[in-house]
Amino acid sequence: MIFERLCIIGVGLIGGSLSLALKQAGQVGEVVGYARTAETRQQALDLGIIDVAADTLAEAVRDADGIFIAVPMGAMESVLADIAPHISDKVVMTDGGSVKTPVVKAAYAELGDKVQRFVPGHPIAGTEKSGPNSAFATLYQQHQVILTLLTDTADDAVVTVRAMWEAVGAVVTEMDPTQHDAVLAATSHLPHVLAFNLVDVLAQHDDCQKVLRYAAGGFRDFSRIASSDPVMWRDICISNRDAMLALLTEYRAGLETISAAIASGDEDYLLSVFERAKAARDTRFTE
Amino acid sequence: MIFERLCIIGVGLIGGSLSLALKQAGQVGEVVGYARTAETRQQALDLGIIDVAADTLAEAVRDADGIFIAVPMGAMESVLADIAPHISDKVVMTDGGSVKTPVVKAAYAELGDKVQRFVPGHPIAGTEKSGPNSAFATLYQQHQVILTLLTDTADDAVVTVRAMWEAVGAVVTEMDPTQHDAVLAATSHLPHVLAFNLVDVLAQHDDCQKVLRYAAGGFRDFSRIASSDPVMWRDICISNRDAMLALLTEYRAGLETISAAIASGDEDYLLSVFERAKAARDTRFTE
Repeated sequence: MIFERLCIIGVGLIGGSLSLALKQAGQVGEVVGYARTAETRQQALDLGIIDVAADTLAEAVRDADGIFIAVPMGAMESVLADIAPHISDKVVMTDGGSVKTPVVKAAYAELGDKVQRFVPGHPIAGTEKSGPNSAFATLYQQHQVILTLLTDTADDAVVTVRAMWEAVGAVVTEMDPTQHDAVLAATSHLPHVLAFNLVDVLAQHDDCQKVLRYAAGGFRDFSRIASSDPVMWRDICISNRDAMLALLTEYRAGLETISAAIASGDEDYLLSVFERAKAARDTRFTE
Repeated sequence: MIFERLCIIGVGLIGGSLSLALKQAGQVGEVVGYARTAETRQQALDLGIIDVAADTLAEAVRDADGIFIAVPMGAMESVLADIAPHISDKVVMTDGGSVKTPVVKAAYAELGDKVQRFVPGHPIAGTEKSGPNSAFATLYQQHQVILTLLTDTADDAVVTVRAMWEAVGAVVTEMDPTQHDAVLAATSHLPHVLAFNLVDVLAQHDDCQKVLRYAAGGFRDFSRIASSDPVMWRDICISNRDAMLALLTEYRAGLETISAAIASGDEDYLLSVFERAKAARDTRFTE
């Protein structure tokens, strides 16, 4: 058994699914859960995601040998600050935050010496749904988990966090936090912003009701991710500001040039962009 | 049987799938196929998509009681011009072009009196693949087909084209060509341009190899449609110029405002856009 008493802070899709998966794997004793609202705590209890609900963060982390923080990026720093005085010297802590440089910064600012017990991580998994109801035990199977180790992270904490993710079927790799944030901006954060913007633009048209009825694959795929949690994605945009702005600048320049080519009827330019993209997708981005 | 001798011009995913579906439904006698290259014609013969290959358009349409034109938008007008002198007064013609206003315009310009025999149509179906190899008999099942009737279209031609699409499992509706083009720009054409641009931007980064490995749903869905046929999408952008430019202007303005909000840390604005988009997706765009 990896943890005798695991504390899960944030019992939604990410936190809840980890708990269910570790329980199913027989790798956890008791799971203590914390959520901001009493309603969410009760929901997590009712669904069997957690065994005990804690009313405060201090109570939640007391006597825990493992802590998983799965809250929106905007709440990460205050959670670290609140738990810091109450955690043991031997606890193993990790998180599921989608942007790693601010988590690393907050960990150094808030955890003091106990930063050695913290292993920043990011499971690349999720659906457009959120909340305890959306959690399921197989979420992490065959999914990547990226750990962005601190220079001060204790080896035994890394071993334990790796073992935890592998126990639920994930594949663990390590990456520098800045590189992580750039890669995730490209693969996930920017696509979500593009989808939110598309649906928002279309929703302002009178005939938008007709839209999905006549939508083939293209719009359906885009609109699905626009159903994701708005608070989570607001926080990700703010937290990954620099990587997002750099990419958005490039993206907007590309779109401006394509628009100009459509306006002027520059068929050669359009064909060259589409061919380059198709070639990249079919060769370099093949799954 | 709906057609004794059906001529399919362009035997790729769209044309080939219609032939296979009508054959499976027992609604067609002989299928004559035309493609620009001898290689594609032979492929279509080998796959059983067509029974006879024609070397010229004149030969292809001779004695046909049905004609389906499934070529890229850029080839539509010249195909109509080439077949016009060779088609019978009783033929029923339709097409699969993704943009309808230019097809309607070309039909009036090229077909003379025989424009009465033409029923412009658009099956909202497809995959990111193209060519005879990608054709399959069930492509149109449960899919929408939009007909954009001309004021001069003969009633019996409409009845036959409706029957043809219903025989392969599609649901037929009618729409004004301009409205069709606006709705399709929103649901399909713009999303494809956004996806091509995303993959093209990312392909210019050194670390793009890492991208798909760490991609969750967001990028995977986007990148799939960037694998679509570049010639087809170049032609669609050019053909649907006005609707595309109008939408691109709105889309780029939205993205500019989101970028500014990320830069200035305007959390309220980001949340309002994402909430509005999620609400629209979850209520008005629900499948």
